[in-house]
Amino acid sequence: MNKLDRNLTMLCDFYELTMANGYLKNGMKDKIVYFDVFYRSNPDHGGYAIVAGLEQIVEYINDLRFDDSDIAYLRAKGCFDETFLEVLRNFRFTGDIWAVPEGTMVFPGEPLITVRAPVMEAQFIETYILMMINHQSLIATKASRIKRAAKGRTVSEFGSRRAQGADAAILGARAAYIGGCDSTACAVADQVYGVPAGGTMAHSWVQMFDSEYEAFRVYCEVYPHSATLLIDTYNVLESGLPNAIKAFKEVLLPKGITNCAVRIDSGDITYLTKKIRQRLDEAGLTECRIVASNSLDEYIIRELIRQGACIDGFGVGERLITAKSDPVFGGVYKLCAVETPDGEIMPKIKISENVGKITTPHFKKIYRLRGKETGKAEADLICVYDETVDDTQPIELFDPDHTWKRKILEDYTAEELLVPVFRNGEQVYKLPTIQEIRKHCEEEIEGMWDEVRRFTNPHNYYVDLSEKLWRIKHDMIAEHRKKAK
Amino acid sequence: MNKLDRNLTMLCDFYELTMANGYLKNGMKDKIVYFDVFYRSNPDHGGYAIVAGLEQIVEYINDLRFDDSDIAYLRAKGCFDETFLEVLRNFRFTGDIWAVPEGTMVFPGEPLITVRAPVMEAQFIETYILMMINHQSLIATKASRIKRAAKGRTVSEFGSRRAQGADAAILGARAAYIGGCDSTACAVADQVYGVPAGGTMAHSWVQMFDSEYEAFRVYCEVYPHSATLLIDTYNVLESGLPNAIKAFKEVLLPKGITNCAVRIDSGDITYLTKKIRQRLDEAGLTECRIVASNSLDEYIIRELIRQGACIDGFGVGERLITAKSDPVFGGVYKLCAVETPDGEIMPKIKISENVGKITTPHFKKIYRLRGKETGKAEADLICVYDETVDDTQPIELFDPDHTWKRKILEDYTAEELLVPVFRNGEQVYKLPTIQEIRKHCEEEIEGMWDEVRRFTNPHNYYVDLSEKLWRIKHDMIAEHRKKAK
Repeated sequence: MNKLDRNLTMLCDFYELTMANGYLKNGMKDKIVYFDVFYRSNPDHGGYAIVAGLEQIVEYINDLRFDDSDIAYLRAKGCFDETFLEVLRNFRFTGDIWAVPEGTMVFPGEPLITVRAPVMEAQFIETYILMMINHQSLIATKASRIKRAAKGRTVSEFGSRRAQGADAAILGARAAYIGGCDSTACAVADQVYGVPAGGTMAHSWVQMFDSEYEAFRVYCEVYPHSATLLIDTYNVLESGLPNAIKAFKEVLLPKGITNCAVRIDSGDITYLTKKIRQRLDEAGLTECRIVASNSLDEYIIRELIRQGACIDGFGVGERLITAKSDPVFGGVYKLCAVETPDGEIMPKIKISENVGKITTPHFKKIYRLRGKETGKAEADLICVYDETVDDTQPIELFDPDHTWKRKILEDYTAEELLVPVFRNGEQVYKLPTIQEIRKHCEEEIEGMWDEVRRFTNPHNYYVDLSEKLWRIKHDMIAEHRKKAK
Repeated sequence: MNKLDRNLTMLCDFYELTMANGYLKNGMKDKIVYFDVFYRSNPDHGGYAIVAGLEQIVEYINDLRFDDSDIAYLRAKGCFDETFLEVLRNFRFTGDIWAVPEGTMVFPGEPLITVRAPVMEAQFIETYILMMINHQSLIATKASRIKRAAKGRTVSEFGSRRAQGADAAILGARAAYIGGCDSTACAVADQVYGVPAGGTMAHSWVQMFDSEYEAFRVYCEVYPHSATLLIDTYNVLESGLPNAIKAFKEVLLPKGITNCAVRIDSGDITYLTKKIRQRLDEAGLTECRIVASNSLDEYIIRELIRQGACIDGFGVGERLITAKSDPVFGGVYKLCAVETPDGEIMPKIKISENVGKITTPHFKKIYRLRGKETGKAEADLICVYDETVDDTQPIELFDPDHTWKRKILEDYTAEELLVPVFRNGEQVYKLPTIQEIRKHCEEEIEGMWDEVRRFTNPHNYYVDLSEKLWRIKHDMIAEHRKKAK
């Protein structure tokens, strides 16, 4: 429970309620079903995504309950039975959830979350789960790309003012940190989620003083150990930089402080930062860092570095916090199996004329296979829930579309990606700290071949199906086609 | 106070706190300043924007307060004085706020909000105000475009699952309704903000039954008066449509119900809806509506209609709730004046090498000038706060960049756009209902020439400066240039 918590049970799509009422009326509400969350393509045509958002889903599931005002609202809609409203009054999640831990690299088609529960419950939590995974995975993935483009330089997230609402700002800062950003400007994201926050001055600070030099001098006096001066209020090279150098020399150097910085937020960043670096060095301020901002993303950052811009840190705002170049992470929530009354798991498939929209049926598990020698991930293997990969034995992988493409993997480890999070409605997963998640994400990226990580035309990481799962899927497609004829 | 409220005082950029502490230490915290919120270009290269988000800003301002945990968090950061923390403990907003009412059509460069307050307060509320205006204006504008593209057909917002967090879903639904959408799928947006919510079934409903027909029949029995059947789970024309027609005929028609609908969420929408219309009509279901969804936005909707698709209603998800084609509304918050101790208002300007980034100084007001005969808006005029437009007299307008472009307006009305919202920290504005805001937005669009409203190469609506304001701005630029030399 933190200060930002609200009960968001009613953040659902209305159809989840109409369907639930329908299931109840037809004696189906307790039918056990399996739903998968998965996505179909990587943001920005990239080679991977970073999954995030599980912590908030766990809190949501634990908090699920309809209060009196919710029941009253639903009653007034006039389309629900009293029996149904009574069921809602005692509604709790009683099922099981498995999930890929936050910060893990994931790929299209893999179940990121699997829910097993009575249909009314499993269907009801669809919207919130999707929203959380879609939003935070979107931002974590974008942050990972931006941080990698910055090649070791610091990246600060400061997009709150352009975020799509408060949660987008706060949880966006959280996801950006998981994905690799070093800090945020958002104070409450620090206070509540432990994302280190920092910040110095706006143009208005400079405008509030009689002169730019005065504004800088005062700032250095108040914050001698964290003086980042914004030098583009009037003219960077003619005014901002000379005034900053003067303030540093008069206030900081006499105290023996050399750890300072200047920031520019406009203009020709490559040209200006080269000039700034040269003049700072000439002034003996070789340790003074240069920070740049102004509508940056991974593409512009990569280009600035290629041009030889002299930048030590980037401030990234709107293009990170909204994932501007590709602002939708298209996770979906699809029925993959139902249980018969005697507990048999029957796979379900959604057919589509669009091949990419055909789902992979059944209750599944995922193995990540890593070469022992390289430590790099070689492929993910999706299996039926009752299969086990024995990583002391060689394994034959094949492309699910072009099945003649085969490969035998030896000397590997097989690690299951989906871990139990809820069991009979009880949380059985200890949430890692944000620092642990961020570190896990770093290791994940480290453990992936460059070909998968690169921005342009990345290698399609192998996500294969086990022989058994492939057979079940293809038999079901064939049967559907037969029925249709 | 509603069930979604949280105290979001700490949703600020950290620099607002470091600057505030700096102002306090330098005896400047009570200096009265003026800040404007404005934006620089319309989303999607459109001709206008719809402003929204004020209601949430009013709630935020009324709720502003730092609690013990906030103070403790800030103390632990180690960069703030105890005197400052004591000031925060009693922090309230004591200033004045003027705003353009929600649902109003607005244009680049106009102050949408003006804040007059002690600098510490005025600076502190920057992030939240910008975030709210940027997010909701973005979505209201997008919704307005989409609704207009739909040419009278209904538009339902159902993007919650792809929204960038809970507020993006909920307040996005609110803003979409203001901008012209007819309904939402988001239940809590209905419960809390009165946006009409609706919804019927997912593919999983169809998959849960032994046959598609059974799924449809049961749904029609449970909801005979709101049966929208999703007909693309297996095959639209071979299976979904015939099963839907059968269910309508067997369940609804005997009850005399002809008000029903089918929905498709995939495939070639133009082709399919033409076929569906034809077969529904042949079956005598002429009143059955056809609803289409699947990654729609104003561009695709316009194209579908041009192609002759037979669609009565659109469901619009991710491309509306994230404003995918242009997901950032770039509102900024700039210092425009300061008061001397004896109450004189001194204009302030932010100079930039980039001409578009030079601000318009001073405490201002905006008049919207409408032709009396046409009822259409002809221009907005930004004046200094102490000027008054007398609309019984002709007025000469001129282009602020090309001052030889002049025009005399006669027989017009002049209406002030900025209305007082807070006075000495007290709310003096009665918040309109969402229905009133939506109606106002409709009237606003109605009161604008087609040339401004069109999607492609719209006419740049005139936003002119008064002679006095133009003179002040240009004198200040000239003075700055002189100083720089």
